[in-house]
Amino acid sequence: MLRSPAAMGSGAFALALALALAACVTPAERKCLLSGSWRSDTGCRMVVSVLSKDGRFSGSYLPGPATGNSEILTSPLEGSQQDARLVPHPTFSFIVHWQLRDSDTTRTTAFLGQCYTGTNGEETLHALWLLREAADSPTEDWKATRVGTSIFTRIK
Amino acid sequence: MLRSPAAMGSGAFALALALALAACVTPAERKCLLSGSWRSDTGCRMVVSVLSKDGRFSGSYLPGPATGNSEILTSPLEGSQQDARLVPHPTFSFIVHWQLRDSDTTRTTAFLGQCYTGTNGEETLHALWLLREAADSPTEDWKATRVGTSIFTRIK
Amino acid sequence: MLRSPAAMGSGAFALALALALAACVTPAERKCLLSGSWRSDTGCRMVVSVLSKDGRFSGSYLPGPATGNSEILTSPLEGSQQDARLVPHPTFSFIVHWQLRDSDTTRTTAFLGQCYTGTNGEETLHALWLLREAADSPTEDWKATRVGTSIFTRIK
Amino acid sequence: MLRSPAAMGSGAFALALALALAACVTPAERKCLLSGSWRSDTGCRMVVSVLSKDGRFSGSYLPGPATGNSEILTSPLEGSQQDARLVPHPTFSFIVHWQLRDSDTTRTTAFLGQCYTGTNGEETLHALWLLREAADSPTEDWKATRVGTSIFTRIK
Repeated sequence: MLRSPAAMGSGAFALALALALAACVTPAERKCLLSGSWRSDTGCRMVVSVLSKDGRFSGSYLPGPATGNSEILTSPLEGSQQDARLVPHPTFSFIVHWQLRDSDTTRTTAFLGQCYTGTNGEETLHALWLLREAADSPTEDWKATRVGTSIFTRIK
Repeated sequence: MLRSPAAMGSGAFALALALALAACVTPAERKCLLSGSWRSDTGCRMVVSVLSKDGRFSGSYLPGPATGNSEILTSPLEGSQQDARLVPHPTFSFIVHWQLRDSDTTRTTAFLGQCYTGTNGEETLHALWLLREAADSPTEDWKATRVGTSIFTRIK
Repeated sequence: MLRSPAAMGSGAFALALALALAACVTPAERKCLLSGSWRSDTGCRMVVSVLSKDGRFSGSYLPGPATGNSEILTSPLEGSQQDARLVPHPTFSFIVHWQLRDSDTTRTTAFLGQCYTGTNGEETLHALWLLREAADSPTEDWKATRVGTSIFTRIK
Repeated sequence: MLRSPAAMGSGAFALALALALAACVTPAERKCLLSGSWRSDTGCRMVVSVLSKDGRFSGSYLPGPATGNSEILTSPLEGSQQDARLVPHPTFSFIVHWQLRDSDTTRTTAFLGQCYTGTNGEETLHALWLLREAADSPTEDWKATRVGTSIFTRIK
């Protein structure tokens, strides 16, 4: 069957519209949101809630088999992601209050990082962190803080 | 006038009670809470809200005259204090999302510190911080993060 | 030909000696020395001299193709390794004074890390670093220092 | 007595020369060199040798009465100052290998900082540092490094 140029145009328009919609949707899916499950390069797992409208989230940090660190219990985290869904590599920050077996010491870690999407669509979180172990007095304060990096990949 | 032993006992008890109450109240007042106004060693000011029951607070970070940094606008902060009112030197963490004049760059600082009360009752906040300036791509990520310390004293 | 017990003993002794020597040599080869060529996880190359008797070395840091950072020129480094050849994972430190194209700014990086040998004999350097860009005045000092990590693997 | 314009010019020239010489000498004296004795804000003392022509120095880090840290013994340091005598606020770096009483653990600190001269001529060293305590294995590496700042003032 022959189609009129108008019909062809209509079909081309529909295709263009579909592509445009796909283009709108696909990047949105790639927007590097923290919600979900992640594994750190030290073998720990992290579960992050759905983000609220203003980018806040809560979640848990869990010891992983790779750590061999049976001292850590499941620990709560809270944070937020900036410009989530608006920029390709949104920054984020979250705080973990460590729950430790057989220890009353207060330990807190502040993570500050950015979510990157690779060319294959894989999301990676790059973060630096500070870990403070409560000091007993101001003279002990100088040695209270550790520093390091963590890289997280999504658990599918 | 002579007082009976009972009356003396009663007066002594009242005094002891008053002292005990004072002892209860005074340390509580000294419990190093973040609520209030603070000045950093770089001349910035910070105003922190009353703490919620679970230790959360919000507030603002303001540029100070000493900074000469007219680029910074009043910027919101959010955080929490651990074991507030329970331990003599509670730890805290808070995040500042910087509002900058003439800049779209996302900058975030994570502060992690501890509140110390001196022998004179003066409160001091000792904190380390990480400051991330959003990187454009993963290859720029390595240089995204600055580190430093801040010391805050209360503005009366 | 029959050998006397003494000769057999002699042969066994020679074998034991050879094994002992091998045992001495092989771990020594695995002793995680910095001498040689390394590639960082950001694509830079580093060439380190033979260590002196007290563990000191010099070398160069070179921009890599992966960095796309044509600003960096080959830059000298100096450092030392502690307990080299004595412990399985010796610590090290070195300083790089950056030579930059079109820039008079003084930039220095201090690396502090440890050399690890994997089960496959692969050596890996894990380091944290501080990078200081000279500040113009004390009031600019707070933002002078960046922090991060680098992982180096040997170039064969 | 009237002076000829030439004589006045000569006098003005001599004054200008004297001022220029003073200007040359005084800043040179203020050039913020690390050589000498310093006290840190945590009460430790540091003695630094005369700088070599290329800015290198050695010295010792000593525990101070304020530290109450009898664990630390006098520990050797080595480092260098960049652009010493050439710029008003030269940067520096040095490494301390800690000598500890009753401990075989290897601890190393890398200091990276800058020397500032105040309006009163007082020199102050502002430094950030990383302190690594040798980890037993790669899985322990994440917690090996502490971070902090030190401020040193000259002991006269």
